Amino acid sequence: MSSTYGEKIKLSIFGESHGGGIGVVIDGLPAGERIDMDAVLAQMARRAPGRDKTATPRKESDVPKVLSGMLGDTLTGAPLCAVIENTNTRSQDYGNLLSKPRPGHSDYTAYIKYGAANDIRGGGHFSGRITAPLVFAGAVCRQLLARQNIQIAAHIQAIGGVQDALFDPVQIDSDLMTRLSTSSFALIDEAAEDKMRAEVEAARMAQDSVGGVIECAVTGLPVGVGEPMFDGVEGAVAKAVFGIPAVKGVEFGAGFALAQLRGSQANDPFRYESGKVVTETNHCGGILGGITDGMPLIFRAAIKPTPSISQPQKTVDLQTGENAVLEIHGRHDPCIVPRAVPVIEAAAAVALMNLM
Amino acid sequence: MSSTYGEKIKLSIFGESHGGGIGVVIDGLPAGERIDMDAVLAQMARRAPGRDKTATPRKESDVPKVLSGMLGDTLTGAPLCAVIENTNTRSQDYGNLLSKPRPGHSDYTAYIKYGAANDIRGGGHFSGRITAPLVFAGAVCRQLLARQNIQIAAHIQAIGGVQDALFDPVQIDSDLMTRLSTSSFALIDEAAEDKMRAEVEAARMAQDSVGGVIECAVTGLPVGVGEPMFDGVEGAVAKAVFGIPAVKGVEFGAGFALAQLRGSQANDPFRYESGKVVTETNHCGGILGGITDGMPLIFRAAIKPTPSISQPQKTVDLQTGENAVLEIHGRHDPCIVPRAVPVIEAAAAVALMNLM
Amino acid sequence: MSSTYGEKIKLSIFGESHGGGIGVVIDGLPAGERIDMDAVLAQMARRAPGRDKTATPRKESDVPKVLSGMLGDTLTGAPLCAVIENTNTRSQDYGNLLSKPRPGHSDYTAYIKYGAANDIRGGGHFSGRITAPLVFAGAVCRQLLARQNIQIAAHIQAIGGVQDALFDPVQIDSDLMTRLSTSSFALIDEAAEDKMRAEVEAARMAQDSVGGVIECAVTGLPVGVGEPMFDGVEGAVAKAVFGIPAVKGVEFGAGFALAQLRGSQANDPFRYESGKVVTETNHCGGILGGITDGMPLIFRAAIKPTPSISQPQKTVDLQTGENAVLEIHGRHDPCIVPRAVPVIEAAAAVALMNLM
Amino acid sequence: MSSTYGEKIKLSIFGESHGGGIGVVIDGLPAGERIDMDAVLAQMARRAPGRDKTATPRKESDVPKVLSGMLGDTLTGAPLCAVIENTNTRSQDYGNLLSKPRPGHSDYTAYIKYGAANDIRGGGHFSGRITAPLVFAGAVCRQLLARQNIQIAAHIQAIGGVQDALFDPVQIDSDLMTRLSTSSFALIDEAAEDKMRAEVEAARMAQDSVGGVIECAVTGLPVGVGEPMFDGVEGAVAKAVFGIPAVKGVEFGAGFALAQLRGSQANDPFRYESGKVVTETNHCGGILGGITDGMPLIFRAAIKPTPSISQPQKTVDLQTGENAVLEIHGRHDPCIVPRAVPVIEAAAAVALMNLM
Repeated sequence: MSSTYGEKIKLSIFGESHGGGIGVVIDGLPAGERIDMDAVLAQMARRAPGRDKTATPRKESDVPKVLSGMLGDTLTGAPLCAVIENTNTRSQDYGNLLSKPRPGHSDYTAYIKYGAANDIRGGGHFSGRITAPLVFAGAVCRQLLARQNIQIAAHIQAIGGVQDALFDPVQIDSDLMTRLSTSSFALIDEAAEDKMRAEVEAARMAQDSVGGVIECAVTGLPVGVGEPMFDGVEGAVAKAVFGIPAVKGVEFGAGFALAQLRGSQANDPFRYESGKVVTETNHCGGILGGITDGMPLIFRAAIKPTPSISQPQKTVDLQTGENAVLEIHGRHDPCIVPRAVPVIEAAAAVALMNLM
Repeated sequence: MSSTYGEKIKLSIFGESHGGGIGVVIDGLPAGERIDMDAVLAQMARRAPGRDKTATPRKESDVPKVLSGMLGDTLTGAPLCAVIENTNTRSQDYGNLLSKPRPGHSDYTAYIKYGAANDIRGGGHFSGRITAPLVFAGAVCRQLLARQNIQIAAHIQAIGGVQDALFDPVQIDSDLMTRLSTSSFALIDEAAEDKMRAEVEAARMAQDSVGGVIECAVTGLPVGVGEPMFDGVEGAVAKAVFGIPAVKGVEFGAGFALAQLRGSQANDPFRYESGKVVTETNHCGGILGGITDGMPLIFRAAIKPTPSISQPQKTVDLQTGENAVLEIHGRHDPCIVPRAVPVIEAAAAVALMNLM
Repeated sequence: MSSTYGEKIKLSIFGESHGGGIGVVIDGLPAGERIDMDAVLAQMARRAPGRDKTATPRKESDVPKVLSGMLGDTLTGAPLCAVIENTNTRSQDYGNLLSKPRPGHSDYTAYIKYGAANDIRGGGHFSGRITAPLVFAGAVCRQLLARQNIQIAAHIQAIGGVQDALFDPVQIDSDLMTRLSTSSFALIDEAAEDKMRAEVEAARMAQDSVGGVIECAVTGLPVGVGEPMFDGVEGAVAKAVFGIPAVKGVEFGAGFALAQLRGSQANDPFRYESGKVVTETNHCGGILGGITDGMPLIFRAAIKPTPSISQPQKTVDLQTGENAVLEIHGRHDPCIVPRAVPVIEAAAAVALMNLM
Repeated sequence: MSSTYGEKIKLSIFGESHGGGIGVVIDGLPAGERIDMDAVLAQMARRAPGRDKTATPRKESDVPKVLSGMLGDTLTGAPLCAVIENTNTRSQDYGNLLSKPRPGHSDYTAYIKYGAANDIRGGGHFSGRITAPLVFAGAVCRQLLARQNIQIAAHIQAIGGVQDALFDPVQIDSDLMTRLSTSSFALIDEAAEDKMRAEVEAARMAQDSVGGVIECAVTGLPVGVGEPMFDGVEGAVAKAVFGIPAVKGVEFGAGFALAQLRGSQANDPFRYESGKVVTETNHCGGILGGITDGMPLIFRAAIKPTPSISQPQKTVDLQTGENAVLEIHGRHDPCIVPRAVPVIEAAAAVALMNLM
């Protein structure tokens, strides 16, 4: 497979859902920086399963063990390797997936590409669980970015049809960024939580799942991050974010809505404010020509509904060569959107560290 | 800057709008393949300016000269270099941009990042003109892909509020693919052309511009192209497509609409059809787990309105440090969407060649 | 740091001599291949310390634990991660190195580059111990290469002034390759062993160390591996081999001796032999234009004497800013050449896997 | 093929000996730096053929045309592309090489790998002529390095059996560096020139050719350039230098001679000199742990004799499948070592720019 990312800060993510462990090597980190491991664990806890009814009942400690790259709480400059052991796996639940691929999952494509050797249990390397090491990497990177006053936070913009408020694209409060980036159900308008949980619960009761949208902001970026053509901010962030299973769309600033605007509406006028160049609007999402313009970087990611649902689904039986019906038992999230929030933030952190 | 793409087929794009020439080096192409240069020129003509009223009046021959990598009409295996000379430039039009950055353009960010040395004339390396070498590269790659029965075609899904029909995501006719991929105003429903041209003309009359959406399909891909996590098809295509100036969003399959679906609706059921595994719907855009599933690959790109408009716009004067008003004279496209269609196709071709 | 190698088979090596563990992630391996873990362990045993008097008395099990990428004995296609725990470390031996850098070691350069945060104990990430994961990676790669009848073997060409016989560059017996590649003191002419051991023992008795040369051959390579200019076999192998601490020179075929030859002597005449094109001599080391020619690939690596010696040495005290004398206590190899043999083979295996 | 180098400063070299032109794209150069094009041309003139009797009579202007990346004499930050047109080619000389590969050349391996499509005329992309763009790139990079007081110079250490003096590895005079790096027959001891020219002339009279060794030094490097394991200075420089056709060995510092030394001899003692840490000897070639130590970087490259010689040589006829005799007519260098000096320097400059 190809689970490496970056040229300056090089990630190599490994692991399978039901193997011995999962983890990441992060090469290229600066020596001498202190890492607050409690803050790292707090980020990982935001992604961890089993925290409430919106999530899978599988419980894991997900505590990473650092094998190299740190001495005490300080980065040594050597590759940082963190390993999370797999525990609490129930492999017997996945017996028939090898012959009957789950719709919406990678079972079929992985089988054709990697053959029967691919470890299908729990999704193997395709599992959402593999995003835990990405969150670890992001948690380290965001601490380094924070020392340059760069903050990263995302929120659940929508679950199904229920919407949160949007970021004010030209002025985002630092306290809001802090609150969102430490929340396990991150919302700008916290009044939306009940409706969203109801939407998820309704899906669960229907043996179904539901998707959503995550909006992410990065504040404090200097002007000048990113390089055209192919190391522009959009491309770098998109490549990292599309590495997350379930993401099917990424848009920056006004994104697809720009298609319906005229240039006179879409162009963000420049203005001096306290001696600094700002834009009055931020339809470009803080990026002009692939390069940050000093305004908040704003992007959105579309998250498809969890493909694992308990309803009977039409599939094929690759052994018999006939159409078939599949019923999946086991534990599934009816909605991964809340848990995906810190993963999106992590992908953004890793991408930006590579562009700085 | 950073205008290289790819690890197997390595592109290095060079040039500035008003420099000596623009072009591309393509390293890693297979030796012995014939290239139909007329077909390459036809692709470049689709992107070339000055063809009708929707486009800039700047006329250029845009005929690439191949300096290496071909002997007669055959690839030698050595890096393929094509150069397009710049002619018909009128640099005097761009005099005041260095101090007064154009809203929506890279002028400001490029100035901060690269300083006064950046060649701002015509947009320099940020110019849309720099997509001509990308179309050249894509035109070569698509010929090689076509020998494996892979077809790439895009159409103008929308200009402003005017919509074309959409691809049937599970069954796309080869003739349609051929027609679209050779059209200079590519539409599934050609009846939309008049309305779209009217939308563009209305913008022009208002000294304004208008954006749109391009939908692209790739048919004939085998099962198994792409690799998780970070060389998945979505990430690879997105990185290439976001390299195109003006693209602000990329979505695959149902994309952002997936957010509002339940899993039972979004999951594409598998079925045998003539002994082959197909899906009954194609909300995933032909990609599961980052890997093609044998159904058409479908994605959409949001194109922002051309930022160059003739209306007076608010900006700053970087020399005086005061707010200012900018009026841009010169030649601009009120809508680049039709010309961007072959560029999107080219980016897809280059990305897929790297994953094959 | 930058301990990643490869674009097709991507290695990411991590660990520090006295940290929690060392290991490697290998991304891009083919799914479905069986790995003989006993053979892997046998390779690692060849490199492991404490086996006889030529080596450091530090004893370690060096048994790698596979965390991902294998199910039973078969590669799953997911990134393969192997971890070796660090045990038996005696950190107190390294107390004064931070202020008094050891001549010939990386202490000084690492201190300037990474500061006091760099984990100097046992050499940290600069330790020769970090080659254990490389041997693991090479042991996996060589099994895959062996399935294409490609064999890799090296021998101790020289320790100090004592020479082994050289490979016959045009005809290398498969049994010899097998014998060398499983030997812990690999010699073509085994009669040299006593003299070499005496050379090492003499150095030890003098509280000194001694260097050597390792010659490596790869047989069974098809014609056509490698690509000019910068992915030629020489460059790819050299980059991997120079990643091994203590290597200060790499030459292919007749190498530096070519400088004294005339073209009529150096050119290897082509000839048909049993319908196959061969060369009568092999001064080019099996590589023409960066591409394998079907003859044995032959290269040599110069290994400097272990810099850790017990004699008093002149150095500086970075704390006081004065010249100083250093006496190193602790455990050192008087000669690492025998243990470096499998490391050189491993580097070759990894480099070639990336070019195939 | 694969003629790209670097991650920070990305080179993409293109061209074939008898195609339309050769050249290079250099991506990632800093904006705003002035380039002295006369100095660039002077470097290219050092490599150009036809200057005296040691070189091929083929005369070329080799004047590069800059297509992008410069405005006036200043780098714009956009990819720098320089093209050198091919003129004065006599393709008819190369008629029979496709069937009868020249010993010591890439004809055979290129034919097997790239087939008959490979442009064999003049060596195609394998030609030594393809090093001209590398010299261009190096000439730009060395100017940027010189602004940090880094000088690069090489000399002809040996042609055949005739030796020049060696660099004093701990103290190299700046004037010597300047003299060597602008010389077309670079020698430390200029008295060696007559003997070397006689050696070359003797080879020519014998319809033969002769090889040599080039020694290169880089002074003024700060402590801390390079990173273990695989972006160490040795590996980075070796990868670039082995990209030059005819190089078959690279060694750093005392190189292969280290094999015969004891640690007490090989270790370079540290000492304070005028408040600065220096080493008393420089057997490590200015590199410890892959990282520069502030002393001169010194390496040597083995250059094989030009394989093109006029004597009849044994080869095969790939058409008839029989052994054959080849007589090459046309123009050949009896010794490329003097012309390779600036190429080696250029490779070093490009490699170091990528590590800074």
